[in-house]
Amino acid sequence: MKTTTIWKSGHAFDSFQHNAKIEIDSKVGFSPKALLLSGLAGCTGIDVIDVLEKMRVPFANLKMEVETEQTTEHPRVFKDIHITYIITTGEENRDKVKKAIELSLEKYCGVSAMLKKNSKIGFTITIQSESE
Amino acid sequence: MKTTTIWKSGHAFDSFQHNAKIEIDSKVGFSPKALLLSGLAGCTGIDVIDVLEKMRVPFANLKMEVETEQTTEHPRVFKDIHITYIITTGEENRDKVKKAIELSLEKYCGVSAMLKKNSKIGFTITIQSESE
Repeated sequence: MKTTTIWKSGHAFDSFQHNAKIEIDSKVGFSPKALLLSGLAGCTGIDVIDVLEKMRVPFANLKMEVETEQTTEHPRVFKDIHITYIITTGEENRDKVKKAIELSLEKYCGVSAMLKKNSKIGFTITIQSESE
Repeated sequence: MKTTTIWKSGHAFDSFQHNAKIEIDSKVGFSPKALLLSGLAGCTGIDVIDVLEKMRVPFANLKMEVETEQTTEHPRVFKDIHITYIITTGEENRDKVKKAIELSLEKYCGVSAMLKKNSKIGFTITIQSESE
């Protein structure tokens, strides 16, 4: 796995994996460190989708809010990380959603496995009904 | 610090920090895990720029290639990480560039400090002259 990151100006960079590009800007855009939170969200999101599909649980509109605070001394690292999973499904599926998340965070998600070596990772589930 | 990541379809997501957006797609775009490599590049890149400016070292065209391999068993995590810093400056500044990188990776860069808990991080420097 490889990415190439090119300085543009100030604290702004373009970063590439194959032909895909993201823009990094610690002042007015996506900060480098925040990419770790989004990497965690994407990684666990893929697991949750795959596991729920295998379980034949109907769902839609998965959203993950990932939050943390940083230490004050250099190097500034994450304190605990909290993920809020917001998903549209029936309330009767809550236990299956919880199981899918636990499988991801404890077994499948490599980003979680790496970040856990620095931070505790917790989560909550918000279930929205179709009509909301 | 917070990011919000919204499932689009398949393994594709939009992720937001404030108003900035990146697109994640584990199949045809930026993979979630690769965001960690770009986060590392941006974090150490900012440090290197700031330190070289403080040292009054003239430079241009900073580029970072970050590479790793993954373990084969779940959860698949990074093995060693290697960063190649490609910078346009005079060859006489090589020691100062090395010093700036070491300050970043050992002291300032929070992403490095977190990923080091899982992976060894090494680097090489490629200096390009203005005429190349």
